[in-house]
Amino acid sequence: MRLTQGIHRAVQIHADHPALLGDGFELTWRQFADRVARLAGVLIDHGVEPGGRVAMLAANSPRYVEYYFATLWAGGVMVPVNTRWAIPEKVHCLNDSGATVLLVDAAAHGDVPALREACPALAHVIHADGGDAGGHGDYESLLAARAPVADAGRGGDDLAALFYTGGTTGRSKGVMLSHGNFLANSMTALVNLGIRQHSVHLHVSPLFHVAGGSRVFTTTVAGGTHATIPRFEPELFLEAVQRYRVTVTVVVPAMLNALLDYPHLDRFDLSSLELLTYGASPMPEALLRQTMARLPGIRFLQSYGMTELSPVATSLGPRYHVFEGPDAGRVRSAGQAVYNADVAIMDEHDRPLPTGQVGEVCVRGPMVMKGYWRQPELTAEALRNGWMHTGDAGYLDADGFLFLVDRVKDMIVSGGENVYSAAVENVIHQFEGVHECAVIGVPSERWGEAVHAIVVPRAGARIDADALLAHCREQLAGYECPKTIDVRTEALPRSGAGKVLKTELRKPFWDGETRGIH
Amino acid sequence: MRLTQGIHRAVQIHADHPALLGDGFELTWRQFADRVARLAGVLIDHGVEPGGRVAMLAANSPRYVEYYFATLWAGGVMVPVNTRWAIPEKVHCLNDSGATVLLVDAAAHGDVPALREACPALAHVIHADGGDAGGHGDYESLLAARAPVADAGRGGDDLAALFYTGGTTGRSKGVMLSHGNFLANSMTALVNLGIRQHSVHLHVSPLFHVAGGSRVFTTTVAGGTHATIPRFEPELFLEAVQRYRVTVTVVVPAMLNALLDYPHLDRFDLSSLELLTYGASPMPEALLRQTMARLPGIRFLQSYGMTELSPVATSLGPRYHVFEGPDAGRVRSAGQAVYNADVAIMDEHDRPLPTGQVGEVCVRGPMVMKGYWRQPELTAEALRNGWMHTGDAGYLDADGFLFLVDRVKDMIVSGGENVYSAAVENVIHQFEGVHECAVIGVPSERWGEAVHAIVVPRAGARIDADALLAHCREQLAGYECPKTIDVRTEALPRSGAGKVLKTELRKPFWDGETRGIH
Repeated sequence: MRLTQGIHRAVQIHADHPALLGDGFELTWRQFADRVARLAGVLIDHGVEPGGRVAMLAANSPRYVEYYFATLWAGGVMVPVNTRWAIPEKVHCLNDSGATVLLVDAAAHGDVPALREACPALAHVIHADGGDAGGHGDYESLLAARAPVADAGRGGDDLAALFYTGGTTGRSKGVMLSHGNFLANSMTALVNLGIRQHSVHLHVSPLFHVAGGSRVFTTTVAGGTHATIPRFEPELFLEAVQRYRVTVTVVVPAMLNALLDYPHLDRFDLSSLELLTYGASPMPEALLRQTMARLPGIRFLQSYGMTELSPVATSLGPRYHVFEGPDAGRVRSAGQAVYNADVAIMDEHDRPLPTGQVGEVCVRGPMVMKGYWRQPELTAEALRNGWMHTGDAGYLDADGFLFLVDRVKDMIVSGGENVYSAAVENVIHQFEGVHECAVIGVPSERWGEAVHAIVVPRAGARIDADALLAHCREQLAGYECPKTIDVRTEALPRSGAGKVLKTELRKPFWDGETRGIH
Repeated sequence: MRLTQGIHRAVQIHADHPALLGDGFELTWRQFADRVARLAGVLIDHGVEPGGRVAMLAANSPRYVEYYFATLWAGGVMVPVNTRWAIPEKVHCLNDSGATVLLVDAAAHGDVPALREACPALAHVIHADGGDAGGHGDYESLLAARAPVADAGRGGDDLAALFYTGGTTGRSKGVMLSHGNFLANSMTALVNLGIRQHSVHLHVSPLFHVAGGSRVFTTTVAGGTHATIPRFEPELFLEAVQRYRVTVTVVVPAMLNALLDYPHLDRFDLSSLELLTYGASPMPEALLRQTMARLPGIRFLQSYGMTELSPVATSLGPRYHVFEGPDAGRVRSAGQAVYNADVAIMDEHDRPLPTGQVGEVCVRGPMVMKGYWRQPELTAEALRNGWMHTGDAGYLDADGFLFLVDRVKDMIVSGGENVYSAAVENVIHQFEGVHECAVIGVPSERWGEAVHAIVVPRAGARIDADALLAHCREQLAGYECPKTIDVRTEALPRSGAGKVLKTELRKPFWDGETRGIH
């Protein structure tokens, strides 16, 4: 049960079938397997041992798919780094994971000196865009010079990746996902999404997130074709669908909004596209109606989950993306448990709740993470009684459809990225003159939710919102920085126990809005 | 990752959907789950502990599906017993497995005294057909009187079943299959067979074999509907397809032959039937053409594997069941590796052979058995280097299609049952006056292959073929007994090393025949 197994199988059944498309690449499975085995050799030459961590900091590209599989082929553990993070966050990820090798693309070259300086374990940086900044060798020439190595053959419960995710403590933690975790997710994806060897999957969601990354594994298990674009832009996306005859991809609702607003949508041949899957936030019914009218013949599927679930726990299929008949109304749910998942709603004492009652969404099954990297206490808390506690509040209806009603964790979902309020609040608290602060999500047409900070100065102090924002930008990713800052003098509302009452703070923003699932 | 998980999920998503049909039963998933939890309680009352073996000796029925899941729900290990075996074979299976409880149906009541006498570990017999032979309680009244128990929650690498299979040594051995083994097979079956919650699977292949048994798990994972008939007979089969609106089932080519010969085929409504899968022997092209003409709209899929592979390793989909175009000719192969299997051809030193070269078919992946029960040496031999050595000889073509050319093991496949020559030869050798003997498979229109024995008497002795056959019938299952016996005086042809040259013995029978794969 190895994530590299799909490569061996694809070479066996159709060695000359396209494996990787995009950015000038057009590799068959035979060529791809050869390059993966060479890059694995390069990683081993750079000291990667079984279980050793290999970090990757890059936009999506065919090479990113090679980073994934070369790391696994060499027996290593992938550590994808969020390109949107600020330097201190990238440093934390590299140091916490103990990565010794970093693969970077041209866009990230500028980060390298700061990362080298702050990350003592980082012994090697491989530049993947032909640049040779710092004399560390160039990707293509390293590959050409290295003989292929044999697959290290790790699999099953062996660690495959650390995907870093925020947390209520404000400290990003490494989610340990095994080969078996991802393969469990891939097999249910094959069943539910119908991905097969003829499928062409466009990787448009960032490959440093598990939502995009898990599809790299699914496409490989199926022996299909990977197509990539570096980022979502309507024209890039539409051109790629047309050129590569893309059959399936994963989007966030904001991308569909942008597509519908794009004036030249009708100029592209999108006839190959069979299925659009989405997650991170529910599909507003109006947007779904509009999209179905503009792109008839495309089916929709929603997935719900989280990094800790590799990532899918429930799925809402095309059948339920309708507005009339007995299946209407289900589109407001997150769907039903996927085939190999137990989904249950638990009360605060971890007792299962009956149908219709709201509690914490908990998941059990082969897709549940091994734990948080070097965080045994957080792991034990999240996985108590063998169930992954998602932090989301919801209920199950009589047919097992999951309806999410709120977030137990104090988290904002902005443009598909999770923002943990505590992480932002920690940074704001460092700013001179801040007495107290609270970070909440407020409605945003563009981002779903936008980060909003409410700041109370110390007696006699004055807070300059622009200077505070500049301070945030140094410490946080762009998507984590407040879009708006409200400086006020009255104290924050608090519960008897002294906890800030965020519900009260959010109320004026959300009244009259259909609050997003997240 | 538990085989009982599908029950919990089916109750969550459609508690009132039919779970079990047949023999007067019409149970919803809610009712089925309740009965399973009660029967598990009964088994625990009868001393079944986690890992304890529960044997079952019965024709197919809805109750057989309950035996499966109640055993697992109680934390036990299923030991299905072949009803066709002779008493000594059944005794060996019960004693070898150490089963303490036996579930029997009416047809097997007659065996009970002999089994009790010869199996000291067998503490309890539960009669499942209302009969109360020996005062051991009756199935339905035991169920009614027992409160449901909680699912023991075993899964993953825990042992789920011992399926007994013959061997070259002539001694039947228990193949240890885990929850994870069966779930790996089920997930690829969902992908390749399209079994879903609307599917109705007819269990017509015996549930004491893994070919039929694995479909019990697949149907449950999918949350579909189980339908059963006690045995294959054309009318029973056709009536069941019509009555239960069966969508999918697994057959052997001999059953199709019988269906085509059945004079009233056209009287039945078979419009629900989407897919017929078959295994154990390849589909003769003439039979396939005939069947497709008589049953248009039904798709065909071939699976190849063995008990040790839970059981599927390769699969040939509907696309390749054609006689013209680029995909023609593939129907003579056993298909390509399923998604999670490594399939390779090895030489006698376990080195992988290139495309087109004949060697032993070897398989690696999450479907490979844990080993042979209490047979560490046989296990180590079969699983050397981490690959299951199937004993079949074959080659892979350039597109990874597996062509089987011969059997490495000396095995005959007769009517879908494996007959190990050595087992039959051992019994013949016990007969007074036998000097040497060889058992081979010869062509049979009805059985694919029929068992043929060549016997050489000791000098001066005379062998009475009828008496020898009677002796065989006492010791062997009906399908293992020779259909024909050839008593001859000349010595058997042997190699320089003294090995009987069975190829030479087979030659006169098979010349001019298209030898079946199995």
